[in-house]
Amino acid sequence: MPKSSIDLSQIKSPADIKSMTLEQLETLAAELRTPLIRKIASHGGHVGPNLGFLEATIALHFVFDAPADKLVFDVSHQTYVHKMLTGRINAFLSPEHYDDVTGYTNPGESIYDEFSIGHTSTSISLASGLAKARDLRGGNENIVAVIGDGSLSGGEAFEGLDYAATLGTNFIVVVNDNQMSIAPNHGGLYDNLRELRETNGTARCNYFRSLGFKYIYVPYGNDIHSLIQAFNSVKNSTEPVVVHINTTKGMGLPVAERDKETFHFSAPFDPTTGEPLNPAKHENYIDAFATHMLKRMANDPRICTITAGTPGAIGFSPQRRQAAGKQFIDVGIAEEQAVGMASGMAKGGCRPVFGVCATFLQRAYDQLSQDVAINGNPAVFVTFYGGAWGMNDETHLGFFDVPMITGIPGILFLAPTNMEEYTAMLDWAIDQTETPVVIRTPCGKVTHADRPVPTDYSNIGYETVEQGSDVAVIAAGDFMSLGKSATLLMREKGINPTLINPRVLSHLDTTTLDTLKTYKTVITLEDNSLDGGIGQKIAAYLGASPVMVHCLGLPKAFPNRYTPSALLASCNLTPEAIASLAC
Amino acid sequence: MPKSSIDLSQIKSPADIKSMTLEQLETLAAELRTPLIRKIASHGGHVGPNLGFLEATIALHFVFDAPADKLVFDVSHQTYVHKMLTGRINAFLSPEHYDDVTGYTNPGESIYDEFSIGHTSTSISLASGLAKARDLRGGNENIVAVIGDGSLSGGEAFEGLDYAATLGTNFIVVVNDNQMSIAPNHGGLYDNLRELRETNGTARCNYFRSLGFKYIYVPYGNDIHSLIQAFNSVKNSTEPVVVHINTTKGMGLPVAERDKETFHFSAPFDPTTGEPLNPAKHENYIDAFATHMLKRMANDPRICTITAGTPGAIGFSPQRRQAAGKQFIDVGIAEEQAVGMASGMAKGGCRPVFGVCATFLQRAYDQLSQDVAINGNPAVFVTFYGGAWGMNDETHLGFFDVPMITGIPGILFLAPTNMEEYTAMLDWAIDQTETPVVIRTPCGKVTHADRPVPTDYSNIGYETVEQGSDVAVIAAGDFMSLGKSATLLMREKGINPTLINPRVLSHLDTTTLDTLKTYKTVITLEDNSLDGGIGQKIAAYLGASPVMVHCLGLPKAFPNRYTPSALLASCNLTPEAIASLAC
Repeated sequence: MPKSSIDLSQIKSPADIKSMTLEQLETLAAELRTPLIRKIASHGGHVGPNLGFLEATIALHFVFDAPADKLVFDVSHQTYVHKMLTGRINAFLSPEHYDDVTGYTNPGESIYDEFSIGHTSTSISLASGLAKARDLRGGNENIVAVIGDGSLSGGEAFEGLDYAATLGTNFIVVVNDNQMSIAPNHGGLYDNLRELRETNGTARCNYFRSLGFKYIYVPYGNDIHSLIQAFNSVKNSTEPVVVHINTTKGMGLPVAERDKETFHFSAPFDPTTGEPLNPAKHENYIDAFATHMLKRMANDPRICTITAGTPGAIGFSPQRRQAAGKQFIDVGIAEEQAVGMASGMAKGGCRPVFGVCATFLQRAYDQLSQDVAINGNPAVFVTFYGGAWGMNDETHLGFFDVPMITGIPGILFLAPTNMEEYTAMLDWAIDQTETPVVIRTPCGKVTHADRPVPTDYSNIGYETVEQGSDVAVIAAGDFMSLGKSATLLMREKGINPTLINPRVLSHLDTTTLDTLKTYKTVITLEDNSLDGGIGQKIAAYLGASPVMVHCLGLPKAFPNRYTPSALLASCNLTPEAIASLAC
Repeated sequence: MPKSSIDLSQIKSPADIKSMTLEQLETLAAELRTPLIRKIASHGGHVGPNLGFLEATIALHFVFDAPADKLVFDVSHQTYVHKMLTGRINAFLSPEHYDDVTGYTNPGESIYDEFSIGHTSTSISLASGLAKARDLRGGNENIVAVIGDGSLSGGEAFEGLDYAATLGTNFIVVVNDNQMSIAPNHGGLYDNLRELRETNGTARCNYFRSLGFKYIYVPYGNDIHSLIQAFNSVKNSTEPVVVHINTTKGMGLPVAERDKETFHFSAPFDPTTGEPLNPAKHENYIDAFATHMLKRMANDPRICTITAGTPGAIGFSPQRRQAAGKQFIDVGIAEEQAVGMASGMAKGGCRPVFGVCATFLQRAYDQLSQDVAINGNPAVFVTFYGGAWGMNDETHLGFFDVPMITGIPGILFLAPTNMEEYTAMLDWAIDQTETPVVIRTPCGKVTHADRPVPTDYSNIGYETVEQGSDVAVIAAGDFMSLGKSATLLMREKGINPTLINPRVLSHLDTTTLDTLKTYKTVITLEDNSLDGGIGQKIAAYLGASPVMVHCLGLPKAFPNRYTPSALLASCNLTPEAIASLAC
């Protein structure tokens, strides 16, 4: 146990730890861990990644001289301690300042943060650019990329390693191997990492050496002394080197060490028992997806659910994965592989359903286009967290899936507005074998159908939910509730609007749209970036008609940590603002 | 030399070679090579990849039993011999049938073609899906993915290998190592491949083994006997295995063996001298880009040109690359790395310019969004072959870059209409340090400015090229010539149109658009897929005004081997059709 305590509030920059003894650094580690756990448990956040990388962060800042030396953190969800050591400790000591910092690195927050990062597997590419720029400038700073084992399965991480190995100058990759991705790792590479751990880094097969890196193994990656030694040995290295450190995810918090998957990221929880503080169990679409897929898979061995490293985000707990058996496939964080493989599986007679966060599907744009759409292979994609109520970090927005997917020919894109429509669309998509289908899981509060929903979506058009005249509101997906509220307000004002559920986003129902050409006003509502969305397509189709078209949707922007209600209000996405357009 | 000749026209399917002796197969190889060279030289096509993989194709079809066994070819530009052996030989023997087949695999053409493939690095993912489907079905066919060394640098190839290594069942990857990408390879992996070749496959470091594959090396990859032995030894393998074959790109055609880069793909040429048959040297934008970049780089060591494995496509011949020295960077076929690194270089104070085919930039959508746009790092991207006059294979269309890029916040997207505007935009983009910029290189005939062009594009809006009234034509990029022809026709009809060059595609010039609200008609012309393009954005902006808006552009479709003039006519993109909208 540490002997003397440190006044954490006095740590203003890494300079404040440079003169510490090893014993003091160990004390510092212990003392940082307490407020760190306190904040994460009461506030929510990434648990395991930060606790496991605490000692390494201290050692990095002790050995390297940021911000002259550059530290680039993959995903950057493990940078809470980095923030504590770089002038932002108050955001971890004072509950009223908890929200002063974001959960990721952010150049707007600190000169110690090189990039705003949230998706995986980017750190090596970004850092290789800093190294290349340094070499062209004739600089001599150290460039350090920190990447977790889970992120190594992403294609950009490989492309980065492959190229960076040829730099011929200083380039340090710290592989933080905690033997876990968000969930357990998948891929042949992970057998190699295990072999390297088991042989103390001496195994004949070595992924990093095969790409041309020098290689160092640190068996005790939570031991500050070992880490300092290792980092000192590569500081000012004149060639690319990998420092492979073996860390314990969730280190120092027993519940997080025990259940690494649950405590990768957690909403507020009791740090002793691990129980969630707000275990609200509303009905939700994610559970419904997983339950429905389990039912379908049990009755047909050709049906599979695929994830790219985020089983929890699509409702597949370890128990559900076990129930699904070999029909549940986790390819690791490798969306390109997930999409390409899904196309091959569909071609091979299976019915693959890739469940994926909207923000991550964009990592496989080319595969959606080339591997799937050009081939017309009937794979099914179900997106989650799309729209205003999805994740609200600037790096994880679900605003852009609709413009992206509707721009690709040959993909049928469906937007259910309620639970019954959702499962009906899912069933139809699985059962048909004609076309690739994307289904956008609603993200707001669950609603239920007040009318029968179709079972066949093969030639589906728009549904007229309320028949009126003169004014039409076309409300897609999640925004059907908003559309209903707006049309209700209009009725109160004596207007008799038509309310339309477009159901399909990838093409226009021109028959229905033709009936609107004689209307006075058409208003489109969509829970995604307006630019490239369906409103603009409808406006263009109706462009040569006298009808006035108003398109409402989310901004083409990267708002960070926004409040959904405020964002919607700023876009005139309130019943009142919508209704006023009809006057 | 072969002793007896074979009637090639009688080869209807692989069954026709199954009973041949080794000597007959060698005769077959020699006899296939002659018409193959004749067709490629007179017709144009992929030279080196097909000549180098001729013997391997024979051996694959001799050993495996397609179409029951599945052969998936990466890029599929090396499948001319595969087509010759699978019922399509007439398309290689009779000049009048040369165009009966495309240059890539195509399921519409033959049951022996599993997928339509044109982009690199996808074969392993696609084939892994076929393998997974086979396993779920309980099948026992062989699944074979063929991939060139150059394609291994792409992220999807890594993701595919990493996952496929864990299949635990039959999965065969044939690595066709001809020691070349399109141009020389770049990446640490290629040192490992060299080491493997130099040690007859026994080197301690082995990329494939590190990922968990069994591994076989074939030193003479153009020797049918060696290949048959190797393929027989892995046929019905019960685990994933890599067969690494060392081939000679361009084998059997001296000019192609000598100059592998020039003869990767070639327009029609004299097979003896290698000289192009139609050496038309019009002024073109690609040469202008390379020449201009060389001039800029010579005067500023911070300026760099980046390619992802396609230096020739952006005008950088070996001589120009040599002149650029370390300021020219080829990352290999690794667009994600190119974009991520460009962001890092811009952050590090350099001025990176990534030149890339429009169809390949979509391989880095997530990197454009996350690594570049969210960070606002002022990297420059210059796209080529965008629009109707770009590449016309369904897998290489340049229709979709505009919807894709205009959907991403924070990227300034410029569309020059002539040479002077092009170089001025390039100069400005390089000199500024405020924002990421994409410049869309025109693809049609070079035109020159008949008016001065601005030097500052930081707050650029639309340019009114011809001031008229009532009717406005907004003609973007390449389509300015078309817009001019259309307005000329209108004038002949007594209409006085306004002609506008939007210059910027990523946002609207609402000041100019506001002046059009009182017009009768606005017509937008864009050389890209209409869906998600600028016309729909303009139509939406003007949607609440009485002005009629007509949007014209390319279809949201994957037309294959289309004729530009016919495609444009089918989209009403002729001066006459456009002018008729103004009546």
